[in-house]
Amino acid sequence: MNSQKKQFSDSDIPSEFEIIKRFFRPLAIDNKASLGLKDDVALLQFYQPSQIILTADAVVAGVHFFPQDPPDLIARKALRVNISDLAAKGAQPLGYLMTIAIPAGTSQFWLENFAAGLKIDQHEFGISLLGGDTVSTPGPLTISITAIGLLPNQVRLPQRCHAQIGDIIGVSGTIGDAALGLQVLKGRIKIDSQQNNNFLKDRYWIPRPRLNLGMELVKHGMIHAMMDISDGLLGDLKHICNASSVGAEVDSAAIPLSSAALAAYQLDPDILPIILTGGDDYELLFTTSPDSWPIIERFGQKLGVPINKIGHIISGSELSVLDKDGKNYPIEQKGYQHF
Amino acid sequence: MNSQKKQFSDSDIPSEFEIIKRFFRPLAIDNKASLGLKDDVALLQFYQPSQIILTADAVVAGVHFFPQDPPDLIARKALRVNISDLAAKGAQPLGYLMTIAIPAGTSQFWLENFAAGLKIDQHEFGISLLGGDTVSTPGPLTISITAIGLLPNQVRLPQRCHAQIGDIIGVSGTIGDAALGLQVLKGRIKIDSQQNNNFLKDRYWIPRPRLNLGMELVKHGMIHAMMDISDGLLGDLKHICNASSVGAEVDSAAIPLSSAALAAYQLDPDILPIILTGGDDYELLFTTSPDSWPIIERFGQKLGVPINKIGHIISGSELSVLDKDGKNYPIEQKGYQHF
Repeated sequence: MNSQKKQFSDSDIPSEFEIIKRFFRPLAIDNKASLGLKDDVALLQFYQPSQIILTADAVVAGVHFFPQDPPDLIARKALRVNISDLAAKGAQPLGYLMTIAIPAGTSQFWLENFAAGLKIDQHEFGISLLGGDTVSTPGPLTISITAIGLLPNQVRLPQRCHAQIGDIIGVSGTIGDAALGLQVLKGRIKIDSQQNNNFLKDRYWIPRPRLNLGMELVKHGMIHAMMDISDGLLGDLKHICNASSVGAEVDSAAIPLSSAALAAYQLDPDILPIILTGGDDYELLFTTSPDSWPIIERFGQKLGVPINKIGHIISGSELSVLDKDGKNYPIEQKGYQHF
Repeated sequence: MNSQKKQFSDSDIPSEFEIIKRFFRPLAIDNKASLGLKDDVALLQFYQPSQIILTADAVVAGVHFFPQDPPDLIARKALRVNISDLAAKGAQPLGYLMTIAIPAGTSQFWLENFAAGLKIDQHEFGISLLGGDTVSTPGPLTISITAIGLLPNQVRLPQRCHAQIGDIIGVSGTIGDAALGLQVLKGRIKIDSQQNNNFLKDRYWIPRPRLNLGMELVKHGMIHAMMDISDGLLGDLKHICNASSVGAEVDSAAIPLSSAALAAYQLDPDILPIILTGGDDYELLFTTSPDSWPIIERFGQKLGVPINKIGHIISGSELSVLDKDGKNYPIEQKGYQHF
């Protein structure tokens, strides 16, 4: 990790070298590949043939999170959205590089809590900071993370373009919680209880990448297409359809909802488009042959991850959503924009 | 490469999907590892044991470049500062991931020129865009690049901590040009001719990573410590000294200057600290045993890269700069801040 000089101002901002030394170097000591963040580069040594997965996501204050969000949660979400991309490919996370553009006046306290959030999740996912860059910015906090994962050699990467006509469409976990959590934070929807309120906000702040499930499904070759849901269930399913030149039919009544989301939906059925298209779920969306479905369900049971069948892949290019009466749900009239 | 939705505004900004499709996907088609930027991840397959080098640098408009700089040059510099880190480790570049936070209102014309700059340098360095993320920002343009390179298996990575007492300190190319170029752009220094003016600005805008030299030196095991000069010759030499627990003595008269820098220095000797500490050179700074020096000089001649001996590593922890009369040059009184 190096630190570039601020070239256009002589003002004395907190030293970026000091920030690296105090807050980020301790996150790198567990993995010698980081070279202690002392050498501008990380060195990964593979002693046998390897399949390396790389993914990069950036988040910006005021765009992807609220500037006043707790710094540890900002850090953890920035990291987890990348880990989720690895999960969706069945990869074991190895580590990450991070560049962070820090606004002038960011406090030591903020940085300490940010680093503490990263530390918690490094432990959670068995990874370390391997390198990066710390710079100053006159604009909002901007975090870019590149995550590195290892895919077992014998397995084929599940891509968006691998969906086949007749496939079952499955999802992990529950859908719409994070998008509803964002609406709660914005004060735009009513929730019946404080407990549900907190549950939804938590789902917005802290994605749970489905690493174990992703690795298990991919390792056993059970999956055709797979991705994580970040742009919303329907938008991301449409990505799979487009890449695979297929259509899809989704049974809206089969979409798994948490009790909190169900309570919110019962209070106001008009929030359904938020659930279907809101995004930030970070659950796995996949297609598989009907023969594999019972085995996949058993994997889910073994790992304690709910898995639900929500529809199937059809010929054509249309994505249809059927309501509880089997009628086409008019998604385009419901604020559904992502395709 | 995926595209995250803008969550906190309903304003209709140019679609990030469209930006990826139109400007960035064409930069990814030459390397199948990118999966065409269609799958959130890149897949690198290594069929034999491998040493992978990863490095990440971010640049911010108004901090690392002027917002009005030509977009193709912004792109090329953002990429080249990362390639330079690979050069300093003797690695062959494979590709890069890029996250870019784009201010609202950025024109198609700007994006087209930005992508054209990347394309030129992809060709120059034999690399492709492998993945990344495109997001919007209410702040300045922010570019984060993670570059990936391959180090031959039989070689040892030259690290900052490998300098030994008695080593010769060498540099490639000429020092101070880019820092003077920045001062020219700011209108702060006088240059004797338009030609020199243009030369220095060009050196500021377009770093020349010393890839071939770096690979050759490292492959033949000629190098102890090595890094690229980004924070200034003396600041970066001090990094090597600190990491290796050694001191250094630099002969300022031996520091190689371009004819443009020499002319500027002769007009105003007070600019010496800018040359010594200004940074942005992206030349190689290395230490080596005296026995290896003649061989290294021959590598430089073979590759057409000037190589100069500028001092040597000594015991202790001090970095001394000797002036042309052999006296200690009082660097700390000359605006020298970087250590």
